[in-house]
Amino acid sequence: MKARVHVMLKDGVLDPQGEAVRHALGSLGFDEARGVRQGKVIELDLEDGTSEARIGEMCEKLLANTVIESYRIEIL
Amino acid sequence: MKARVHVMLKDGVLDPQGEAVRHALGSLGFDEARGVRQGKVIELDLEDGTSEARIGEMCEKLLANTVIESYRIEIL
Repeated sequence: MKARVHVMLKDGVLDPQGEAVRHALGSLGFDEARGVRQGKVIELDLEDGTSEARIGEMCEKLLANTVIESYRIEIL
Repeated sequence: MKARVHVMLKDGVLDPQGEAVRHALGSLGFDEARGVRQGKVIELDLEDGTSEARIGEMCEKLLANTVIESYRIEIL
């Protein structure tokens, strides 16, 4: 089975990487980009029957820093 | 309007970051993770009416390195 985990910085947490992308888009003439936030997506190839709770544990322990990041699990 | 761009390494391109995550998951006892690929997700806050083609242009010019990465656009 496959799962996808999206990890984004929480609202209010400064995102310098996203800000740099927004600035670069502006320099290239893409002025319609008013805001950019950048996060990670992690695609997991898992043994069949792995529960969502177990994937949540992976997120809490390794994949996301839950102090500043939120995560979302998508089973594919 | 908002859009989300997913950027992943193409199949066959070595992903050392994903491999490191897989290894770390194994060390933590998550042996059910057999493969991991890591990519980026970029959330764009755009002026209303920005076309998907225009977002594709942003991907081609800046957001993705299309030699080794593929991208997917999702309008929210």
